[in-house]
Amino acid sequence: MATELAGVAVPMDVTRFKYSNRVVLKTILGSRDGGLVFVGKRVVIGGWVRSSKVGTIEPGTPPLPPPKADERVAQTGSKDVTCVEILQSRIPFIRSIMKVLGGGNYHPREKLEQVVSRPPPPPPPPQPSIALLQVSDGSCVACLQVVVAAAGDPINQLLPTGTSILVEGILVKPSVQGKHVIELKAEKVLHTGTVEHDKYPLSKKKLPFDMLRDCSQFRPRTTTVASVTRISNALTFASHTFFQNHGFLYMQVPIITTTDSEGFTEKFVATTLFGKVGKMEKSNAITETEGISLEVMKSAVKEKSNLVEELKRSESNREALAAALQDLRKTNELASQLEAKEKSKPGTSLKAERVNFSEDFFSCQTYLTVSGRLHLESYACALGNVYSVGPRFQADCAKPVAEMSMIEIEIAFSQLEDAMSCADDLFKFLCKWVLDNCSDDMQFLSKRIDQTCIDRLRSMISSTVEKVSYTEAVDVLKKVTDKNFETKLEWGAALASEHLSYLVEDFHKKPVIIYNYPKQVKPFYARLNDDGKTVRAFDMVVPKAGTVISGSQNEERFDILGSRIKELELPREQYEWYLDLRRHGTVEHSGFSLSFDHVLLFATGLTHVRDVIPFPRSYGKAYP
Amino acid sequence: MATELAGVAVPMDVTRFKYSNRVVLKTILGSRDGGLVFVGKRVVIGGWVRSSKVGTIEPGTPPLPPPKADERVAQTGSKDVTCVEILQSRIPFIRSIMKVLGGGNYHPREKLEQVVSRPPPPPPPPQPSIALLQVSDGSCVACLQVVVAAAGDPINQLLPTGTSILVEGILVKPSVQGKHVIELKAEKVLHTGTVEHDKYPLSKKKLPFDMLRDCSQFRPRTTTVASVTRISNALTFASHTFFQNHGFLYMQVPIITTTDSEGFTEKFVATTLFGKVGKMEKSNAITETEGISLEVMKSAVKEKSNLVEELKRSESNREALAAALQDLRKTNELASQLEAKEKSKPGTSLKAERVNFSEDFFSCQTYLTVSGRLHLESYACALGNVYSVGPRFQADCAKPVAEMSMIEIEIAFSQLEDAMSCADDLFKFLCKWVLDNCSDDMQFLSKRIDQTCIDRLRSMISSTVEKVSYTEAVDVLKKVTDKNFETKLEWGAALASEHLSYLVEDFHKKPVIIYNYPKQVKPFYARLNDDGKTVRAFDMVVPKAGTVISGSQNEERFDILGSRIKELELPREQYEWYLDLRRHGTVEHSGFSLSFDHVLLFATGLTHVRDVIPFPRSYGKAYP
Repeated sequence: MATELAGVAVPMDVTRFKYSNRVVLKTILGSRDGGLVFVGKRVVIGGWVRSSKVGTIEPGTPPLPPPKADERVAQTGSKDVTCVEILQSRIPFIRSIMKVLGGGNYHPREKLEQVVSRPPPPPPPPQPSIALLQVSDGSCVACLQVVVAAAGDPINQLLPTGTSILVEGILVKPSVQGKHVIELKAEKVLHTGTVEHDKYPLSKKKLPFDMLRDCSQFRPRTTTVASVTRISNALTFASHTFFQNHGFLYMQVPIITTTDSEGFTEKFVATTLFGKVGKMEKSNAITETEGISLEVMKSAVKEKSNLVEELKRSESNREALAAALQDLRKTNELASQLEAKEKSKPGTSLKAERVNFSEDFFSCQTYLTVSGRLHLESYACALGNVYSVGPRFQADCAKPVAEMSMIEIEIAFSQLEDAMSCADDLFKFLCKWVLDNCSDDMQFLSKRIDQTCIDRLRSMISSTVEKVSYTEAVDVLKKVTDKNFETKLEWGAALASEHLSYLVEDFHKKPVIIYNYPKQVKPFYARLNDDGKTVRAFDMVVPKAGTVISGSQNEERFDILGSRIKELELPREQYEWYLDLRRHGTVEHSGFSLSFDHVLLFATGLTHVRDVIPFPRSYGKAYP
Repeated sequence: MATELAGVAVPMDVTRFKYSNRVVLKTILGSRDGGLVFVGKRVVIGGWVRSSKVGTIEPGTPPLPPPKADERVAQTGSKDVTCVEILQSRIPFIRSIMKVLGGGNYHPREKLEQVVSRPPPPPPPPQPSIALLQVSDGSCVACLQVVVAAAGDPINQLLPTGTSILVEGILVKPSVQGKHVIELKAEKVLHTGTVEHDKYPLSKKKLPFDMLRDCSQFRPRTTTVASVTRISNALTFASHTFFQNHGFLYMQVPIITTTDSEGFTEKFVATTLFGKVGKMEKSNAITETEGISLEVMKSAVKEKSNLVEELKRSESNREALAAALQDLRKTNELASQLEAKEKSKPGTSLKAERVNFSEDFFSCQTYLTVSGRLHLESYACALGNVYSVGPRFQADCAKPVAEMSMIEIEIAFSQLEDAMSCADDLFKFLCKWVLDNCSDDMQFLSKRIDQTCIDRLRSMISSTVEKVSYTEAVDVLKKVTDKNFETKLEWGAALASEHLSYLVEDFHKKPVIIYNYPKQVKPFYARLNDDGKTVRAFDMVVPKAGTVISGSQNEERFDILGSRIKELELPREQYEWYLDLRRHGTVEHSGFSLSFDHVLLFATGLTHVRDVIPFPRSYGKAYP
């Protein structure tokens, strides 16, 4: 904080980021007074231009009296203060400094001081300009306003959205009062990274999310995706903190595996059988839109239908619904055209039975793990309580993404109720953490994306989760008269998202844990109940994001686990190591998987997981 | 802590683990006085039997005076106190309790109290026994001694190593002084998970690591692997803490990718072209030792040679060296036999050029990422400082593992020196964290595995890293006269592990950062120096574990990056998104990858990464 010495405020030192010569903007803008405490300090900052304004000063124009900007701003906000007004107020500053700066050229301090101390300034070069840059470095929601005065080209280079700038200057109070508490008066532009304006996909304007998905490499430069990333970061650390606080041990489960952890999911094979892949063919490396397959289109249709449904249900955004409907119609048309074309093509897929996997890298067929819970069990059955965080995979073209972030845990000496209680506590902890640690980002998202996102987190923390058995849930749903469900409801079938949504948002009006599912809709390892029909598995369903956690007490009885494997015709030899955990020193245990991506949807209010995953992988898309 | 009330010590309450009905052993044994504060408390504990002792009491034997155990123990340690002595001291306790317990049967409290308060006890059943079980639940190094008295079979079931037990009892001071400060007097055995003794791979005895690798599912039940896992857990959380403290944001990089992040590494293809793989063939699922391929053998030979070299260098363990040499000879023989056999076999590998990847799940050829740094750059060039933790893959049969744990970071607005400084700080932070948070585990490992491991961590924290350029390093190595290197030393080639080891352990005698490598031995994205020959890349090399961190300042100049891609004949269209980061708003930036597995070797003193990775994947082995 600033200290007062003999009546003079001494500005606080600004801590430079340790591994760069710059100061991170959050250090300045995140201070309680918005950075006022640092006024007068010389700093180097770096970032990317979000938006900019510029003006030209006529040579010889006499300085105008300062405009009554304060009053205007109070009435209408800073955006109504015209560029000319701002420029007029800045002419003395511009005069003194515009000769100092060149586009990216380095000016030693001595030269700067000579120039600054030499009144009167020489006649300005043609077209002297001032640029007001809104610069973000991604460390916080706010931008720092950087004021650069220079001539011609150097200024023009700085203006486009996306330009990077490393700049040294003095933090000052803005002479024109606006939304900024402070601004940076640039003295040296140390680096400029230009933008090829016609090729850069981002602009000042807000772009729709599906357009942003086509340029994942630039998405984090948007305010929304930057906020999502900071919240994602907070949630990751919160998860680790929760488990460390409770004495869980982290372990890394293998991604490449020979064990099918669920028994009913399509998987990716990991192989080296195709030979060296160091240099891939051009035609294969990137999906061409022309070469898009029918299945991709079908998947797109399904997904867009889901979105439409979602939007219909939430009734929050009629424009978005209209756009989604039109998009769906278009995609449907394209799919029909493609279907007609594809029907004549012959298939060329390889069949697993014709492939000799003993020649593969691992001398056997291996694939990317669907779930790490089986491997976690092995560690739980030795170390007690363990967890893992990492990617899991499903080669299912109907799913929105093929690569998901999951948090998985396993607790030895525990039962279904323990896992449900831990799931509830974890989710509440995550919600509270985001509210406590990401208030600026949440404020921003509540304005830009979803007004209800902060309330949703708050209500999650204060509400008690409703626990209902699957059978009770079906009973409730069967009695519903005010709504027609599209998916047929029958005891024994999985509940559709419309059912879950009804239970959570209409009936119980709070998060719900559904447990004791029919055995056929849950993995083979869920513990069989005495009725022989249901298993000790549960789903935790929340508003907005649907099922965020799925868990179970796992079958600890050797014989019954063996019977389940046989019943489902799973290849027992794959599971011998897993059965070993029951053969030798078995204990009751339970655990769950949390879909990190869905928790992020819940927190941020975004609708699609592809918008919260940095580089989403989905059917037909793995670039960049 | 225990509070003194009217002269009577009131034992402290024992906090039950929130998601189980048991108390975690660390809660008891990890208290400053080893658990004395909890004497008199009733608790439920669960764990696995590490070792056990048992005895039979002749009916009618009068209680013997307590043996002078204290003196004996002081001289020789508890293991010399015979079982008979212990049993003799316990007869009164056994008498009162042995009727209460049945093998796993539940006895309500009332019944227990009736029995305890009814003197004299009825005549004991045939063969009453007492079992002293050393029980571990993996939460700490120490075991809790559990004393169970029961008749016949129930006791026999409890004895085998690996048996699980959930037991309720009273914490008491042991009547025979030994290494234990307290023990649990069992009152109810709530659960027993038996062991099929002839099939269980672990025993009281210490097994060699390579034997343990064949039963990864049980390894964490050994004291060493449990300690390694706890240290691994601490290091994971320490890494997150370090980066969160410094304002880095966590992001999840994609595992499935179309971009080759290095340009010279063999990769795994992720595919669905083989069709459904839900149910794999028996012959493929598990590597049969008979069906072992020549390449597996060759890889084994290479690896075993490396181990021999390592052991020769360290000169710490002559027995291990002799064993390793013999093992190498055997493997060499087998490899020769196999080579003769294999020479006649025809190859059946598929070739990538004959495969139509447009029919694959992603409509193109995709593989498992070798490094996440390129994708991290995209986020660094928007959010400043980012990091990721996760698995990375190399399909290289010469490497000890194909799936590695890496921590990767990227810092915008930074140069080579910043990344080196961050690498140094991170490594020191991790070393200090382990010393501060894992002292029991480190004490154990220093006794069991490597006497020097604690000193190594300490010296790392206090020493300044030596920074030498690659050229200086080569000059030093060329002048070496007291040692013959097997690998030829030439400017431009990668340094072999014997060179690195000489620099770190013999010459500088401290950790070394080698920087400015010849461009041909580093990835294409490392920033070219003005000499046109070297790049701003570095390796941080430490004693024992070798290279733990590799990093670089990355090429921010569009044209030069383009030239490097062309020069190395990499497919440019794969990198267009990456080049975009230079096309639009480029900044100087740097980063590194830390091999988590190697840091774990450094900390624990273990020699092979396969022993610190929970389920290691290596050439020919991906089970379980």
